[in-house]
Amino acid sequence: MLQRRQFLKGAALAGTAAAATTIAAPAIATGIIEWRLVHSWPKGLPGAGTGVDRLAQRIEAMSGGRLKLNVFAAGELVPALRCMDAVMDGTAEMGHDASFYHHGKNPAFSIFFAVPFGMTAQEQIAWINFGGGAELWDELNKQFGIVAFPAGQTAAQSFGWFKREINSMEDFRGLKMRIPGLGGDLINRVGGSAVLLPGGEIFAGLQSGAIDAAEFIGPLNDLALGFHQVAKISYGPGVQEPGGMMQMMINRSRWETLPSDLQEIVKVACWQMHEDMKVEYDFGSGRTMEVLRTEHGVRFLRLEREVLEGLGKAAGELVQDMYDNGDDYMRRVWKSYFESREKTMRFLRFNEQAFLNARTLNFAFPARGFG
Amino acid sequence: MLQRRQFLKGAALAGTAAAATTIAAPAIATGIIEWRLVHSWPKGLPGAGTGVDRLAQRIEAMSGGRLKLNVFAAGELVPALRCMDAVMDGTAEMGHDASFYHHGKNPAFSIFFAVPFGMTAQEQIAWINFGGGAELWDELNKQFGIVAFPAGQTAAQSFGWFKREINSMEDFRGLKMRIPGLGGDLINRVGGSAVLLPGGEIFAGLQSGAIDAAEFIGPLNDLALGFHQVAKISYGPGVQEPGGMMQMMINRSRWETLPSDLQEIVKVACWQMHEDMKVEYDFGSGRTMEVLRTEHGVRFLRLEREVLEGLGKAAGELVQDMYDNGDDYMRRVWKSYFESREKTMRFLRFNEQAFLNARTLNFAFPARGFG
Repeated sequence: MLQRRQFLKGAALAGTAAAATTIAAPAIATGIIEWRLVHSWPKGLPGAGTGVDRLAQRIEAMSGGRLKLNVFAAGELVPALRCMDAVMDGTAEMGHDASFYHHGKNPAFSIFFAVPFGMTAQEQIAWINFGGGAELWDELNKQFGIVAFPAGQTAAQSFGWFKREINSMEDFRGLKMRIPGLGGDLINRVGGSAVLLPGGEIFAGLQSGAIDAAEFIGPLNDLALGFHQVAKISYGPGVQEPGGMMQMMINRSRWETLPSDLQEIVKVACWQMHEDMKVEYDFGSGRTMEVLRTEHGVRFLRLEREVLEGLGKAAGELVQDMYDNGDDYMRRVWKSYFESREKTMRFLRFNEQAFLNARTLNFAFPARGFG
Repeated sequence: MLQRRQFLKGAALAGTAAAATTIAAPAIATGIIEWRLVHSWPKGLPGAGTGVDRLAQRIEAMSGGRLKLNVFAAGELVPALRCMDAVMDGTAEMGHDASFYHHGKNPAFSIFFAVPFGMTAQEQIAWINFGGGAELWDELNKQFGIVAFPAGQTAAQSFGWFKREINSMEDFRGLKMRIPGLGGDLINRVGGSAVLLPGGEIFAGLQSGAIDAAEFIGPLNDLALGFHQVAKISYGPGVQEPGGMMQMMINRSRWETLPSDLQEIVKVACWQMHEDMKVEYDFGSGRTMEVLRTEHGVRFLRLEREVLEGLGKAAGELVQDMYDNGDDYMRRVWKSYFESREKTMRFLRFNEQAFLNARTLNFAFPARGFG
C-alpha cells in the first residue's frame, strides 16, 4: 500500500500547487510565449508524467525562457481521454497522450501507437523517421487540424494484470479487460470484452470488479498505481503492444505561428523525450518487478505457447480484415508498416535477438555481477 | 562496386567543398559562436557521419544561428583516432567518436562504449542516464579536461567480416582482426591478434592482407565501405559489441563559457542524436543486408553455439581480470555496470526478448506483409 499512497499523496499535493497557479495570459508583447500542455496521465506518473514535466523544463531552458509550457495532468483542465479534442479546439495548444485513445475517430490512429505482434519500440520509430511513417501519419493528423510528433515510448509492455491464470484461449471468454486500441479489438475477437479506461481509473475498476483484468504499461507504472493490491498475476510478454509510441499533439494553426527556432526546439525536445521516457521505463521496470515479486507476492508468468499462438492467429486475422475492409489510406498505411517491419525484423533477428538469446545461456558472467 | 564508388565520390566532393570553406574567426562580438567539431568517420558515412551533420544543422536551427558548428571529418583537421586529443588541447571545441578508441589512455573508456556480452544499446543508455553511469563517466572525463555526452548508438553490431568460416575456437588462432577496445582484448585472449584501425582504413587493410578479418558496425556501413568486395562472410551476432554508445566530447573550459540556453540546446541535441543515429542504423541495416546478400553474394552466418560459449567464457574471464586487477575507480564502474545490467536484463527477458521469440514463431502475419 505504501507506494500507492505515497504516489497519490505526491500527486494530490502537486495537483493543489498547479491549481493555485493562475494561468497567465499570452505574453507575446514581452517576447514570452505561454502555452498550455494537457496530458492524459496521473500527475507525476513515473515515465509518462515525469517525461512530460522534463520536456517542459527543457523547452523553457533551451528557449532561454521564451517558450513556457504550463502542464495540466489528466483531469486538471480536460478529462484524460479528451486531450486531442482540447488541442483541436484550442483549449490547449499542446497535448500528450497515446494515439490509440482516438481509435474511434479513425482506427488508423491505433497503428501509430502499437500493433499486436507488430513492431517493437525501435522498429516503430525507424518506420516513422526513416520508412515513410511520419508522412502517412501527418496525412491523418492534418485532417484533424493537428501536428504530432513521437514523444515517448513505453518500451515493450506487459500483457497485463489478472486475478486468475490464463492457460488456454478459453480463459478469455467473457473476460472484461481494460485494453485500448487494436489490443482491445484482439480481446473482443477471442471472446473477451475490451474496456477503455484512462490509466488513473484502472485501480478502481479492478477493485470494484467492473473489470476482471487490465493492461496498462509495465511494472514501473503498475507499482505506482497499486494494481498488485487487487490482482496478483502479471503476464508477459505484451504481445498486444510490443512497444507503445506516445505522441505530442500541437494545434496546427498555433504551430504555424511559432518562430522557426522555437519550432526546431520543440521538435528536437519531443525527439529527445521519445528516448528519455523509454529509458526511464527500461531502467525502472526491472527494479519495480523485483519489488512487486519479493515485497508484494506478485507472480510474473509467461503466456503459454498455446495462448501465444491463439493470440497471434487472431492478430493476423484482425490486421487482414482491417486491410481488406479499409479505405485507400488504411491500405497504404498497412503496406508501408509491413514493408518496414520486414526490413527491421531481418536485422534484429540476425543481431540483437540472437545476442539476447546467446546471453540467456548465461555462461559469461556471474548472474549478479560483482561486489 | 557501385555503392562504394558512389559513396567515395560523394565523400570526395563533400571534402572539396569543406576544404574550400575558410574557417571564420570566433565572432563573439556579433553574438555568433563558431566552434570546430572533428569526428572520426569518413565524410558522410551513413549513420555516424550523417548523424553528426544533422546534429550541427539542428543546433544551428535551434539556436537561431547563434551557435554554428564547422564539421571536419576524419583526416580533415586531425587524424580519425586523434579527436580526443584535439578536444583536450583546444584544436577543436567538440569531437565525436567512440570512447573505446581511447582504451590506451584508460581501459575504463571502453566500458562506456561497449562490453562483450554486456549491455544492449537500450540497457547501456539506461545505465548512463538513470543508473549512475553518467556520474562515473564524468569522473573519468574530468581528468582529461573534457565533458562528454552519449551521442549516437550503432545498435547491436555484427560480429564482423571474414574470408573463411569460423567453426571452432581454433579458428581464432593467429587471426589478425580489426577490433578495438574490450572486443580486441577478447580476440587476443582467444589466440587472435587485435588491430586498431579507423573505419576508413579497414577496406585497404582487408585488401592488402594486413588483416584477415574486421568488425566495424553493421550492414549499413559495410555496404558503404565496400567490405563485401574483399570478404564474403558476415557473422552475427556481434557479441563483442551488443550496442556501441558513441560520444560527443567538448573541451571543458570552452563548455563552461557557453550560455546556459546554448548548453541545454547542445545537451538535448546530443541526446536526440543518440536516438536518431540508432534509428538510422536500425532502418538501414535490414535493407542493406538484403542488398549484400542478393546482389553481392554475401553469406550471413550465425556463430555456432560452441563459439558463442567459448567467447562468452573468455569475456567473463576478461571482465573478472579487469575487476581483480583494477583500481578503485575501475571496480566502482564494474559494480555499477553489473548492478544496472542485472535490473534491465530481468525486464528485457520478461517482455521484449520473450516477444521477439514469440514473433519468430511467425504464425501471426504473412512473412512479407501486404500488397
